[in-house]
Amino acid sequence: MYEAFWREVGDRGATVIRGWQVMSYFSDAAALCWFLEPELEREVRRLHRVVGNAVDDGYHLVVGTGATQLYQAAMYALSSSARGDQRQPVPVVSPAPYYSSYPPQTDLLLSDLYRWAGDANKFTGDECIELVCSPNNPDGAIREAVVRSAGAKAIHDLVYYWPQHTPITGRAAHDIMLFTLSKITGHAGTRLGWALVKDREVARKMVYFVDRSTIGVSKESQLRATKILGVVSDAYEVVPPPPAGDGSAVAVPRLFDFARRRMEERWRILRATVAASGTFSLPEETSGYCNFAKQNLTACPAFAWLRCEKEGVEDCAKLLAGHKIVARGGEQFGGDARCVRINMLDRDNVFNLLVQRLSAIN
Amino acid sequence: MYEAFWREVGDRGATVIRGWQVMSYFSDAAALCWFLEPELEREVRRLHRVVGNAVDDGYHLVVGTGATQLYQAAMYALSSSARGDQRQPVPVVSPAPYYSSYPPQTDLLLSDLYRWAGDANKFTGDECIELVCSPNNPDGAIREAVVRSAGAKAIHDLVYYWPQHTPITGRAAHDIMLFTLSKITGHAGTRLGWALVKDREVARKMVYFVDRSTIGVSKESQLRATKILGVVSDAYEVVPPPPAGDGSAVAVPRLFDFARRRMEERWRILRATVAASGTFSLPEETSGYCNFAKQNLTACPAFAWLRCEKEGVEDCAKLLAGHKIVARGGEQFGGDARCVRINMLDRDNVFNLLVQRLSAIN
Repeated sequence: MYEAFWREVGDRGATVIRGWQVMSYFSDAAALCWFLEPELEREVRRLHRVVGNAVDDGYHLVVGTGATQLYQAAMYALSSSARGDQRQPVPVVSPAPYYSSYPPQTDLLLSDLYRWAGDANKFTGDECIELVCSPNNPDGAIREAVVRSAGAKAIHDLVYYWPQHTPITGRAAHDIMLFTLSKITGHAGTRLGWALVKDREVARKMVYFVDRSTIGVSKESQLRATKILGVVSDAYEVVPPPPAGDGSAVAVPRLFDFARRRMEERWRILRATVAASGTFSLPEETSGYCNFAKQNLTACPAFAWLRCEKEGVEDCAKLLAGHKIVARGGEQFGGDARCVRINMLDRDNVFNLLVQRLSAIN
Repeated sequence: MYEAFWREVGDRGATVIRGWQVMSYFSDAAALCWFLEPELEREVRRLHRVVGNAVDDGYHLVVGTGATQLYQAAMYALSSSARGDQRQPVPVVSPAPYYSSYPPQTDLLLSDLYRWAGDANKFTGDECIELVCSPNNPDGAIREAVVRSAGAKAIHDLVYYWPQHTPITGRAAHDIMLFTLSKITGHAGTRLGWALVKDREVARKMVYFVDRSTIGVSKESQLRATKILGVVSDAYEVVPPPPAGDGSAVAVPRLFDFARRRMEERWRILRATVAASGTFSLPEETSGYCNFAKQNLTACPAFAWLRCEKEGVEDCAKLLAGHKIVARGGEQFGGDARCVRINMLDRDNVFNLLVQRLSAIN
């Protein structure tokens, strides 16, 4: 979906890396996060200030190979510090429906430090790590931590807390907040995420994890993210050049405006299709005042949590598969099999085909 | 050390990435290693053929975020397939002295699947994973697997098996062979390694590991590695253009020639310094016929395994620290504290200072 935007940006979005640049493991050997390029740190902090979605003052920045590596780093940091001598893995929980990759990624190596423990709403113990995804993947819900025991610690997965998806209602200030380039600008292949971390010791342990698991993060990805994020912020901060001789202003493409227009359009189409069919339902539309856009905005989640309301249908994914629609079934998210997760960020032709096929089901 | 080479290469070594390129997680959705860029695969296989250091026919190629991630992926693949229901971690061993990062990286998450078990020469069980590093980090030795039990499986870490470091005596053909860009061209910051894997199921599990831990490998790193490796192979394969008008041929910088000259020079200086002092010793110089260079070559390891022969000195690292030389002590490699590992790849000024300070010790 974002490819069209970056084509419009053109050459200003290109990254050039000479053969002799960024050859070392180190970006700043004296820094806590020694593999983080200082220019990337500046652009990340700048973007959070431009958008106003997270407090960065007083936070350590840890870069990772996508948010995926960072939540593993955070689980490592929280569980290895919490435990002392006993060897019971810390339970990791998240309220269903939760992101379907949380369980397999948490238990990939069957760690002695932490272990997936399912739906946070069913958790009855004390010590745990809660993964709080807000807006939530798969259903777009705005969430707060639900486990209130003294031993509970939270990792806030805020990768969708950007103006194209949800009104920015305030600057988040949680202990550990995860973000990723892919959900802001579409550059999923770059594998570039970051964490804002309040506690220095937790940040240090996360850096240790990223060091040990991949000896840092690709410098090429960091250089490109620096360029890309700079283009995004510039469009909102830099004063445009004066109009050309013919009086026309040079249009600077603005990423959040572009993406919001597209998301609103797709959600309008999907909601109309679902309303017309009567076979399905969607979570109710929510809206709120966005401090960034300075106006009321509806939520436009990256995924639609589509529920089949047809009597006798227990497995929505199966029903859709019969109509050549591939969607991840609700059970994979620890949720209801009558729901599926629909990707709202696919290419235009894929999205159009989806709508066309959905509207044919009755 | 390699920076000078890449400056000499100039613009031909530059990578340009447009804003809209490689945005997806996928490189080839239908391939076993779906996040591997096909152009990178071509250049990797081409380089192995140019150098003749490994068989690639009939091998699956798996890309990783450095060799570090790949040996973890390989341990995962070998231990998760070997085990069935019982839950005893598979012992991971390597003959001392072994690379000092093997133990902490293996035990980062205290996995139930595998567990660091120390010196392979002391291993008495049956089932295990042996890490075979050849030429070996830290001492440059040419190694074969030492554990001969029926349950032993090997991961061959061949990251230094290139002509600047050792004579290429034949094409290696082990079950799992690891390589990394950083040890060939100096691009450590790129975090780009690959594995040649004989068994399809092992390769599939390694791909699963890289997917779950980082959802693939930075596309920017892959594009740059493609460019860099292409420049290396071109210099040995592409016919140079005809001489310019003044009769002078255009010199095409050749990486292995450049690096071997530098390594031989440094080893000559270090050996002369050590011989003159009498306080230290080095592993004996070895040599052999190199099929790539078509001549006899000496081994020029990336590290020098320096031993203190002075009576009463039990800790060589401590002795050197007293003379402002920072070197990793032998105990970190499961070896003798009277040895240290000296980096032979540092910048010129650092290497010169090292030699100067070493020669002052008596």
